Amino acid sequence: MKPSAVLFTQNFPAPKKLGEELLLIYDEVLPKKSEEFKKWMKQIPLRYAVQAGEGLKSIDLFPDHISKITTLCEKASVSKLTIVVVGGGSVGDFGGFVASILKRGVRLIHLPSTWLAAIDSAHGGKTALNVGGAKNQIGTFYPATEVVLVKSLLLSQPPSRTFEGFGELLKIALIEGGILWAQLSREYEVNAEVLWKYLEAGIKAKYKVVKKDPEEKKGLRHVLNLGHTVGHVLESYYELPHGISINYGLEFALRWSVEKKIMAREDFDRLQRQPVMAYLLSASADQLWDVKANVLKEFRRLLLNDKKKTKSETLRFVFIKKAGQTVIKEVPVDDILVEICRQREEELNG
Amino acid sequence: MKPSAVLFTQNFPAPKKLGEELLLIYDEVLPKKSEEFKKWMKQIPLRYAVQAGEGLKSIDLFPDHISKITTLCEKASVSKLTIVVVGGGSVGDFGGFVASILKRGVRLIHLPSTWLAAIDSAHGGKTALNVGGAKNQIGTFYPATEVVLVKSLLLSQPPSRTFEGFGELLKIALIEGGILWAQLSREYEVNAEVLWKYLEAGIKAKYKVVKKDPEEKKGLRHVLNLGHTVGHVLESYYELPHGISINYGLEFALRWSVEKKIMAREDFDRLQRQPVMAYLLSASADQLWDVKANVLKEFRRLLLNDKKKTKSETLRFVFIKKAGQTVIKEVPVDDILVEICRQREEELNG
Repeated sequence: MKPSAVLFTQNFPAPKKLGEELLLIYDEVLPKKSEEFKKWMKQIPLRYAVQAGEGLKSIDLFPDHISKITTLCEKASVSKLTIVVVGGGSVGDFGGFVASILKRGVRLIHLPSTWLAAIDSAHGGKTALNVGGAKNQIGTFYPATEVVLVKSLLLSQPPSRTFEGFGELLKIALIEGGILWAQLSREYEVNAEVLWKYLEAGIKAKYKVVKKDPEEKKGLRHVLNLGHTVGHVLESYYELPHGISINYGLEFALRWSVEKKIMAREDFDRLQRQPVMAYLLSASADQLWDVKANVLKEFRRLLLNDKKKTKSETLRFVFIKKAGQTVIKEVPVDDILVEICRQREEELNG
Repeated sequence: MKPSAVLFTQNFPAPKKLGEELLLIYDEVLPKKSEEFKKWMKQIPLRYAVQAGEGLKSIDLFPDHISKITTLCEKASVSKLTIVVVGGGSVGDFGGFVASILKRGVRLIHLPSTWLAAIDSAHGGKTALNVGGAKNQIGTFYPATEVVLVKSLLLSQPPSRTFEGFGELLKIALIEGGILWAQLSREYEVNAEVLWKYLEAGIKAKYKVVKKDPEEKKGLRHVLNLGHTVGHVLESYYELPHGISINYGLEFALRWSVEKKIMAREDFDRLQRQPVMAYLLSASADQLWDVKANVLKEFRRLLLNDKKKTKSETLRFVFIKKAGQTVIKEVPVDDILVEICRQREEELNG
């Protein structure tokens, strides 16, 4: 698997630079929100608009999508066709999957339109659909030939999206440590310009992990799940945006790392004093962590739905010793539930 | 892409030799036809029976299949799971596709149950589904880790299947030339033992082509389409078995090669005197080649459905100079129709 070429540009690239024959798969809200996009997309004759969200990734709707897409591309030459995907995570997962199986694979370019996609999901080649409500049950490893990061597109997002993207940036910075963490952790403000500034370094850090284990055969990519084990549960249960859930999941992982004495308390205290962490931890999920028995039961079910589960009802949880040093431990799923209760009590009592 | 390991065995291999956790996808007729298979399959707890045929490959039914398969594998460990596919071409295309996308790809072993699959389709990694009646519109390149050729399974087929498998063997022998062709062309009888005898050499010849262009990026695999351009049309229009259609398609390609002076007439005459060719050419499709205008129109449509079409309504046709020497030429689709009429007249008049 060849890793994607990553390109940074201020504005939309000329369509003819992207490939000979293009099929655009894009989030239907984009032309409504951006005049620039609307003007740009009209230069591409073959277009397929989709409604972003988990519904797009349902296998049940896939036959209809692929049938329309096949008809749309009927006259295109397979060897010259490039699918250009413009959207966030779900559109990227869907469009990447389509590109990987249409005529047994056509050229693919991602133009992520959300921070989450720009920092994380557009890179590393994972594509996915959902089966019967269970996420990402099927998919492929199919890295885009190019991932093009268009500043004007990313900065056209509402500010609320900044906070979301920030979770993934923070995650990869905590995994990477080094200069990325040193610089990012000192930022006092989190805004779109700051995200754009760290985008390249964050992406590079992700590729460093991915290239060690492109198809997740060795379990080395698992470190990228930092903050995601519990994050995904909150995302499903409370129907929260992915980025927000990851922020909570990161906080959970940090606090559990301290409780487990994997991270020294003084290191955690120092971490908490970093301007950027204040930003993260201020989001503390008071309204969440509803730890009644029936909720825990549902959390348990959601945790075991995680496809990284092993037979013995344990999960590989990513702890963190300090920025740049993660520790993966096999933990019983019930230990996670106990820790959720413990953190909730800690919050209530202190 | 790693090519498959090809193993030859007299009887079914012990399931535990195939992998740690197995999911068997198999043609539902097999346990009814073979006591040996029935006994063997019962050793594999996770089983999914399918009805072979193009219907199995319809994308419209795929959500239901994959949902059942996902549920069946719920407790299996992704890293240990091997999908074992036992069936002919359609079951292999389907099962291979499932293996290539389930949890982004699990281990795959093919045990082809038909000669067509044993000689051709189980090798080379092509998987496929149909979209809206058009064949193989989506799929992946996903070579099985192993292809296991079980003599008792292949020899349990009815004799009518021998003739079918023979077309693909003859095709690859004509492409390869050399010792394979020299030996095969002298065979007086075509039966299951003869097919088994040439199986290894036929498969090796196919891998020689495939490895030059595993993902069909360079057009070098196209030579394997010898006999298939017109073969596929007959297969669709007259609803003939694939192998039978390929026999007709091979004959068409040979005769057109002579007409085009690509093959010298004396070489064709010599070829016709080979015992094995008598067997092929005796199948001459008198009842076919119904060349009324409306039929030709439909042939034209079917030819252009061929996914190897180029924009200008031409097709890459595989001609043959002599055994071991193929010539690919871009031909207008209408030239194929004219040649169909010419061959029909030649038959009627001579």
